[in-house]
Amino acid sequence: MKLVFVQTGGTIDKDYPHTTKGWAFEFGEPATKRILEKLDPSFEFEVLTSCQKDSLEITEEDRQNLADLISNHEGDKFIVTHGTDTMSETADYLSKKVGDKLVVITGAVRPERFSNSEAPINLGCAIATANLMDKGIFIAMHGIVKEHSEMKRNLETGKYY
Amino acid sequence: MKLVFVQTGGTIDKDYPHTTKGWAFEFGEPATKRILEKLDPSFEFEVLTSCQKDSLEITEEDRQNLADLISNHEGDKFIVTHGTDTMSETADYLSKKVGDKLVVITGAVRPERFSNSEAPINLGCAIATANLMDKGIFIAMHGIVKEHSEMKRNLETGKYY
Amino acid sequence: MKLVFVQTGGTIDKDYPHTTKGWAFEFGEPATKRILEKLDPSFEFEVLTSCQKDSLEITEEDRQNLADLISNHEGDKFIVTHGTDTMSETADYLSKKVGDKLVVITGAVRPERFSNSEAPINLGCAIATANLMDKGIFIAMHGIVKEHSEMKRNLETGKYY
Amino acid sequence: MKLVFVQTGGTIDKDYPHTTKGWAFEFGEPATKRILEKLDPSFEFEVLTSCQKDSLEITEEDRQNLADLISNHEGDKFIVTHGTDTMSETADYLSKKVGDKLVVITGAVRPERFSNSEAPINLGCAIATANLMDKGIFIAMHGIVKEHSEMKRNLETGKYY
Repeated sequence: MKLVFVQTGGTIDKDYPHTTKGWAFEFGEPATKRILEKLDPSFEFEVLTSCQKDSLEITEEDRQNLADLISNHEGDKFIVTHGTDTMSETADYLSKKVGDKLVVITGAVRPERFSNSEAPINLGCAIATANLMDKGIFIAMHGIVKEHSEMKRNLETGKYY
Repeated sequence: MKLVFVQTGGTIDKDYPHTTKGWAFEFGEPATKRILEKLDPSFEFEVLTSCQKDSLEITEEDRQNLADLISNHEGDKFIVTHGTDTMSETADYLSKKVGDKLVVITGAVRPERFSNSEAPINLGCAIATANLMDKGIFIAMHGIVKEHSEMKRNLETGKYY
Repeated sequence: MKLVFVQTGGTIDKDYPHTTKGWAFEFGEPATKRILEKLDPSFEFEVLTSCQKDSLEITEEDRQNLADLISNHEGDKFIVTHGTDTMSETADYLSKKVGDKLVVITGAVRPERFSNSEAPINLGCAIATANLMDKGIFIAMHGIVKEHSEMKRNLETGKYY
Repeated sequence: MKLVFVQTGGTIDKDYPHTTKGWAFEFGEPATKRILEKLDPSFEFEVLTSCQKDSLEITEEDRQNLADLISNHEGDKFIVTHGTDTMSETADYLSKKVGDKLVVITGAVRPERFSNSEAPINLGCAIATANLMDKGIFIAMHGIVKEHSEMKRNLETGKYY
């Protein structure tokens, strides 16, 4: 099995600025790399970057670029790390473009850099989904894994279910 | 969805002794609790303890106790944390006793207490499996999830594949 | 020995917003509390909050409030956690108001919530200083502890020396 | 300022065995290296190994080797990481051999590999002591830093004070 991990940005990859007088986050290398180093997995993988954006700033062009990356890649199983606020929009977009491949979208509520981040658990959920499913667009968040059109979100708490 | 997590011991739950002059590990509360606190999951769950043993010391009686716990419980989806050395033996045993329920066996190469542990990733793999499968005995380790009879292990490196 | 820890904000205490659609950091409870829980110290302590601000936003009024807190408190050894950009200004202010007590100012380059934060090391430096010195205003950063008027900062790298 | 860190073993450096069927800890590279990487200190340093032993197994020969290492080294400020059970014995030995240099002995109750270890705080205490003191043999544990002959230990809780 070979998995292709694709970074698009989002909370999971937010890091602290290295410059003085910084305040907001900045995006660093894919957190996926650090998580996979801990896992030392038995599957083959590569880690790519499609964009590095907060999910509220992802445009249709970004989504098309992501769809193109997936379509043009020889792989058939993709795990996309993504900001939590527009996962469903990206999933819906991809379902019309690359639904014959397997794509699992995940992310995190707290940056992977945080010691109390749930990013490693979420990535584990995505990896298992890639083991067990053959095609379709899935979302994995808050311990729930569903085909994207069945995933719901509590807009008050932000939790998927 | 409701998941039942069952502790049997193993590396994942090894903690450092609190007494002076201690050397070897001792078993603490289920690491699952700390991981689920980070996840803040949308599913319901409970965390039970069947035994607290290194997997090389698990006996047939321990396995029968575990099978009984699962059989007698009203739940139908179980995640069993277990030492890495005899996961297959326990899976094989359970398959003859409770194969009509879903059981995912997982654990860790390094204790969850370690900052470089892969336990949260593995538990994520197990949780996703419980989302996607209805019955059978699965093992989730090293990023691989398979029905237990298909899982193999490299005895030199200890890695499942 | 009794130590009084005083929070003023700064990077060390930045936490991730719990709301959806958040971007920048917000201040949480003093990171000092989490660090002291790990240390399980033999000294007595209390943890107070003077303000919760980025150090560039600390005003003279904030500094006077901090000086008042220290002057009016019965304790004589204080560790102030503070943003890294204006530590020297606060130290200079305090030296004119409370120089007969011991104050150690410290903070962190990365929030304590980060798994790669140096906050626990810095707080350790401050605690040792409180053990060894009787009065004066000290700064502890980047492994260097000096009476505040002798501390210098490389404005390009942000490092104290 | 230049500091010389010397590993002798002890809980702080205990790591999990990489082999299968391992149970007890094994000693890895000095935890000091990982802590200093987080600190990114402004002082110069080197990290040496004198031995890798549980402190109950340290012999007079080990202590003489450590004393020789310190005596023969051109540096004058040393931080020795050491098991918690015989810190005072080693300190006493060194005081008769190298008391004209500065030696700070520290360690940890939980291995630095543990996410709840207090090792970084303790090392911070030792580093500050090396900043502020010129000579003598100190112990830094549980947030207390004292000249070694003044340090006491509660034998029931294991805590220094």
